[in-house]
Order: sequence, then structure tokens, then C-alpha cells
Amino acid sequence: MSALLDLLGDTLGPGGIQTGADVEARRRGDGNGPHGVLPDCVLRPRTTEEVASVLATCDRLGQRVVVQGGLTGFAGGARPLAGEVVLSLERMRGVAPPDPASATILAEAGAPLEAVQQAAGSAGLLLGVDIGARGSCTIGGNVATNAGGIRVLRYGMFRDQVAGLEVVLADGSVLSSLSGLRKDNAGYDLKQLFIGSEGTLGVVTRARLRLHPKPAGEVLAFVAASGIAAVLDLLARLRAALGASLSAYEMIGGTLYQAVALEGALRMPLAAGAPLYLIVEVTGAEPARDRGRLEAVLGAAADEGRVGDAVLAESARDIADIWRLREALGRYTLKLAKVQGFDIAIGLDRIAAFMEKTGRAVAAVSPAARVLVFGHLGDGNLHYLVDDDDPAIAKAVYGCVAEAGGSIAAEHGVGLDKKPYLSYSRSAAEINAMRRLKAAFDPKGILNRGRIFDLSGDP
Amino acid sequence: MSALLDLLGDTLGPGGIQTGADVEARRRGDGNGPHGVLPDCVLRPRTTEEVASVLATCDRLGQRVVVQGGLTGFAGGARPLAGEVVLSLERMRGVAPPDPASATILAEAGAPLEAVQQAAGSAGLLLGVDIGARGSCTIGGNVATNAGGIRVLRYGMFRDQVAGLEVVLADGSVLSSLSGLRKDNAGYDLKQLFIGSEGTLGVVTRARLRLHPKPAGEVLAFVAASGIAAVLDLLARLRAALGASLSAYEMIGGTLYQAVALEGALRMPLAAGAPLYLIVEVTGAEPARDRGRLEAVLGAAADEGRVGDAVLAESARDIADIWRLREALGRYTLKLAKVQGFDIAIGLDRIAAFMEKTGRAVAAVSPAARVLVFGHLGDGNLHYLVDDDDPAIAKAVYGCVAEAGGSIAAEHGVGLDKKPYLSYSRSAAEINAMRRLKAAFDPKGILNRGRIFDLSGDP
Repeated sequence: MSALLDLLGDTLGPGGIQTGADVEARRRGDGNGPHGVLPDCVLRPRTTEEVASVLATCDRLGQRVVVQGGLTGFAGGARPLAGEVVLSLERMRGVAPPDPASATILAEAGAPLEAVQQAAGSAGLLLGVDIGARGSCTIGGNVATNAGGIRVLRYGMFRDQVAGLEVVLADGSVLSSLSGLRKDNAGYDLKQLFIGSEGTLGVVTRARLRLHPKPAGEVLAFVAASGIAAVLDLLARLRAALGASLSAYEMIGGTLYQAVALEGALRMPLAAGAPLYLIVEVTGAEPARDRGRLEAVLGAAADEGRVGDAVLAESARDIADIWRLREALGRYTLKLAKVQGFDIAIGLDRIAAFMEKTGRAVAAVSPAARVLVFGHLGDGNLHYLVDDDDPAIAKAVYGCVAEAGGSIAAEHGVGLDKKPYLSYSRSAAEINAMRRLKAAFDPKGILNRGRIFDLSGDP
Repeated sequence: MSALLDLLGDTLGPGGIQTGADVEARRRGDGNGPHGVLPDCVLRPRTTEEVASVLATCDRLGQRVVVQGGLTGFAGGARPLAGEVVLSLERMRGVAPPDPASATILAEAGAPLEAVQQAAGSAGLLLGVDIGARGSCTIGGNVATNAGGIRVLRYGMFRDQVAGLEVVLADGSVLSSLSGLRKDNAGYDLKQLFIGSEGTLGVVTRARLRLHPKPAGEVLAFVAASGIAAVLDLLARLRAALGASLSAYEMIGGTLYQAVALEGALRMPLAAGAPLYLIVEVTGAEPARDRGRLEAVLGAAADEGRVGDAVLAESARDIADIWRLREALGRYTLKLAKVQGFDIAIGLDRIAAFMEKTGRAVAAVSPAARVLVFGHLGDGNLHYLVDDDDPAIAKAVYGCVAEAGGSIAAEHGVGLDKKPYLSYSRSAAEINAMRRLKAAFDPKGILNRGRIFDLSGDP
């Protein structure tokens, strides 16, 4: 460690290295809490060249590195392990003005998502991904976890926003594809490797992101539904009527809705008591027409008894309140003492059977446990929470995920916390292929080691 | 070779191996002509398991393999080299009915693109990629080259259509991600590796492809323009007015248009003589409104003198004739005796300067050479052809591409033919990273060896 500090002290300049009492407690963890080791040392480069120097030096010394962005993850990917130094991108927060010719924007990895959203918005453009942690999560973390959120239905995941990346490999070499060409097949598309690989193959330092025209307006409905079958039926009708203008389709389980309502802190759009609730967002070119179409679909579904009460947001305040409720759901579950959270994806054709079967499997382990569900139903992505920390529940839930051919990590990544369950979604051949990639790009295993999968010889 | 045939004879069954006089002359090459070596042996598996057996056996023996699909490429990727056996996917042509719940379709690698398009169409859905070779090119080749074509503007390249892949690695292990989950971040997204890597990292055996709602109608205009600046200005106006409904924006250079007109074989929509021509396609939900908007934009641009004559297709025959003309452009250039073709991409903000500078650079080498240009201008992708085979012209054109930060291989791949120019678009660090990937997945270098880049020790 002292060799490392000697080598990097001059490189990183004033404020570039924090040690001892300067290391803040927040470095110990992520959105799940500060459960990790307090690192001995935090390295805070200001430029890509400094990141390259840091990694080349660490690689030479065999020094393990954990990369930290906004510390908003939910899988422990940024939680330090013993012996690791922290590489923080927090001094690389630059955001360039959007480039109108290519409809892209260039940002440094440490820039908060919200800063990029605002820069895009000020040019009349939109970044397609939005997540609740927008104010503190960073572009580097968004790329590394392939962030999703509420508008994947329309704009895809973070991968779909990435027009180019600059990445530093473990040996300090720099790969750059920031030109933003729409079509480029001159050899392998290397940037794809670093999207969603949770910092295990390289450190993202800059990203060029695609932007979209800002929609003319937002039409938002809040709907009570009788069950999963009705929710899927309504989704199909909305897709047929609204096409790509349907931009979010969020589900809230009745138990969770009731629990949040009981706290009394928020204006609830509808009375509690329904089995499920939905947030339906439409952001097309013609809000008045969109609104008419949405009302027609909801009316027809209500006439057939498939959906219950529904309200349309009538004002900016209504819209803000509904999204505030949506963001309160995750916060509510984080406050529970013994909660286990599952970030899973299931094919839409299997989701009804999955919900029923998993509910029974959880009850068999813990009859009193509440199942709290919310998530991005349009993508088959459920945040499925159980307020009981019995490890048998995790095995039961992931067993049902595996049986349904689903994913144990839809949008929060694998990190340290989901690693024991990777084989529920991935074959031995796939995990072996991941290890081959790790060995090819980080042969000494210094980068975010032990995240996603173990290396041979690790405990 | 005889050891290989002994080992695989039983595995592949009747018709599974062609040797000697049974090897057809067409195996020698691709869309550029049969310029390669006639292979001694063609292996024709019927199943993924047979592909796995073939590769495991070849890997053990160190037998080099070139993969062949529809033989419609333009970069020599499928052209056999001495000592290679051919692995053809032509007996794996299955296409499943589309799955409406996930809006995807599952196809075997040897299925022609057109067969998948037709299966999607019969279910009221659309595959987003269309290219002229649709009748004979295959899904495996489309994935391996990340095919583009005329509708990238709206639907993206082939990568964007791929929901999942089944791939056999050089050692015969099989990676499969065919479940078609919309969100899945359980470890690395391995399928991305095989899209656009031209069969050098694995052999695609099946693909699950995303489908889109079929547009309600097609509005097509053919427009004469005064130059590149006018073309870019019109593109910006159309995007603002039509958004995602603008689905194709194809450019034809005046010299090429005149040459095709002089052949007299086709109905030309407008008189020759303009510097540039455009095909503008709009495929939205409301064709009548789309048509009105398109006419309004074209009318305004004409009033300002930015575009010249314009015609809108009035019938299915008009539409077919315009696309027939579009597809005749490539065929015309292939007939020229000494033509050199460049498949390049340039950022839209640099394309005007690039065209002028490259024209001068070509003229400096060969004052009489004609420059024939067409392509997907909306993506910055130009098919830039010169009817003179002086190698100095390639160096001049690629030098201008490099200076503009462009791509030497936009949508046709690198193969054998563009390989000498890869460094015009890719840094040494990037090419080194590609070699690391190749070594990780094909350590003996048996798969499509020498395509994209050379391995160490190769001539």
C-alpha cells in the first residue's frame, strides 16, 4: 500500500488520495447500507490519463481495486472487500453541451445521471433512461450496471443509449469509441463488453450517449386492476392503440400499496384494497390525442370488468404526486428490518403462473411473510420483496425464477450479493465464458474481483 | 483431412459432407465473385449438436474452418483460404411461428432473411432490418456482420433486433440466450460478442429476433437535391416533422443516377442531371397524415430553393419501381470492370467536407475516374465506389475516412478484403483487445482465421 501511495502521490495531485481519517464512512457500501470494509485508501483521479496511471500501477503491484460511482447500487458491487483500494470517479463529473448533429451528449463517468438529463433537456432533448437515484447515481455506474428504470419499454436499457465509450483496462491501456458513428463495424464492437459487466473488465471514464426528441407532453393514468391477467390484457391493448408512445407501465402490488397508504405521508391516487395498481405513462407527439386513446382503452377495459377505478393526472402536481408515490415504494421497503429484495425478470407469458407459484413457495417457508411487489411490468421486471430474512426464501424464489427461465438480476446487477445465485440463470458454459473474458482483460484479477462470479482460488 | 472425415462421417449422416466433385464452384467466394480456393470439403450439419461435434473435432485436430451462409457478403469473410474446410449452415433453415407475447421470432442460422420477414409479416409484424440480398442472405450471416440496410434510421442495425442467440464456440461448447427476456443482467451479455464479429469468435446456430408492429402504410418520395448541405438540411426538417416515422433516407449521387438512367432498363422517377437524389420513406401509424407532413416539408424546402423536383409515389407500382431502382444501383457497380467499393460511415457534421476532400483526393490519383456514390445517408453510411482499381485510390479514400474519424467498414464487415485498412479506424489498443478476445474464445485460431485481423505468425 505504501508503495502504491508513493507511486501515485504525484500523479493524482492535491486531494487525489484519501487515507486514514479522511476516508468517509459512506465508502463502506451502497444503497443497501454501509456493510463493507472501510477502505484504507481512496484514489480520486481527475482525468482518463490519471485513471490509466492508477490502474497500470495497481496492476503492476497486484493491488486489488473496487470502483465507486454514486454508491446507489443494490447488489454490493461497489462494497469494498478487505485489501481493496477504492477508485472513485467523483472528480470526473464533466458534461459537454449536447451535439445536435448526432443527437448525442458526452459525459464523464462521475457525472450524475440528473446532470446529463438536465443538459439534454436544456437543448430540447431527452436521455431515454430515468431511475429514482438520478440525483446521485453516475453515468459510469449506469453503464457498468446497464441501468434500466421506468422507460425501458420505450427507449431500451442503458446499453441502447450508449453511442460510444472510453474505457481504461486493468493494464492502463485506453479503448475509445467516442466518435458517435451510428454505423461502425470495423472489427468487434468492444464497448458492448463494458456495458453491464459491473466494472470487472475495465473502468468506464467517458460515455457518448444517444438523445431523443423531447416528447410534446406526458399523459399519466393510475389504474386499479383485478390481477395479473387483467394487467397483461391491458398492456396488449395499450400497445396496439398507442405503439411506441406507451412509455411506462409500472405495477404496484396491493399489499405494498396499502402499506404505503397506511403511513399517511403521501396523497394516494386511489383507495387501497385492489389486488394490483398500475401507472400508465404515454408520451407521444400529440398529448391530446394520446389522452383520448388512453381513455378509450381504459374505458373499454373497465366496461369488460378487467380494470377497476382509474384516474388520469389533471395537472403537473398530479403527475408529480404519482411519480413521488412510485419512488416511495423502494424507500418503504428499504426501511423494513428483515427484508430480502429480488430484482428479477420473467417472460410476460409466464409471469402470472410465476407469481402464484412463488407466492405459495414463500408461504411454505414463512406463512406470515408479506410479499411486496412493484416494478416495470412492461419489461417483465419485478422488484419482489419479502419481509423475512430466512435464506430458504431466497432459494425458493430463485428456484421459481429458474423454473420460469427468468433472470435473477434484471437491472440491479449481480455484484457480491446475487453471486451465489448466478447459476440459477446462467449455464456452466456461460459462466466459463465470462471467466475467459475476465482472464483476457484482467489477467491478475485486480478489478472488482469477486463481483458477479468468483475467480479460481477465491474463497 | 481424412481423419476429420472419418470422425464426422457418421455424425453428419447422408449428404452431410461434400468432397471432390460434389463441392460446388459457388463455395469459392461471396458477393464479390468466386475468387477464393475451392475447398476440399464442405460440412453441412443439421442441428446445433452436429455443429458442436464438427467444431469440437476440428478444434482437436487444429483444422481451420470457414463458415458460410448465403455467400452474399462484400468483404471476403466467407471466401475460403487454402487448408480450410467449409462449415455451411444451409441445412439449418427452420423458422418458428412468431411469439406474440414477446413479439419475437426464433430462426435457425441458415434461414434466409426473407423467410423470417415473411413469417413475421404473416403475423402482422415486421423485422426491422431489410437488405437487398434478402432472398439469399441468412440470419447467421446477418448476425455475424451486424447487417444494416435501409431502415437503420428507424429500427437500428441487426444488433438491435437480436433478443437472444445460440452460439457454438470453437471447442464445441454451446452458449444459449434464447429465452428472449427483455431485461437480463445476470452477468455479461455474452451474445453481444458474436454480433458483428464475423464468425471469428463462435458460430451462430439460432437467433431470437425482436419484431415490430407492421406500419399502417408507406409514403415514399423521390427528390432531387442541389448538394450535400441541402440533403442534411432536409434531413433535419424531416426528423423534426416526422420523428421516428421517418424510416429511410437514401442518397444517390448524380453520376450514378445518370449512368443507370442511360442503361434504359428502369423507369426513372426524375430526369437525370441533378447533383444528388434522395429516397425518403415514411412509415407511420397514419399514412394520410404522414403524407401531408412530408409534402409540407418538401414544399417549404423547395420554396427556399434547397430541393428541386420531387415526386411522391402514387401507387404500389410507383413504390416498387423506386425500390427496384435503389437495388439496381449496387448491381450496376458490380458489373464495372475495375471498380473499387468502399463501405464507409462518416459523422453527418463532417460528411460535406469529406465528400469534397475525398473527391479531390481521388481525382489527384486518377483524373478520369468516376465517383459513384449511394447509401444510407441518414446513418452517415456511404457506399462510395470508384471505377479505377489503382491501389493508391484506396489509400486516398481511407486516409480521408481516418481524418474524418469515420469507419472503414460501416455495414459490410471487414473480412479479408478490408483487413489491411483496419488501423485507419481502430487504434493499436483496440486491435490488441480484439486479439485478446479471439485468443480467449478460439485459442487455436481455427474459426474464420485471418478475417478482420491477422493472428501472430500469420503471413
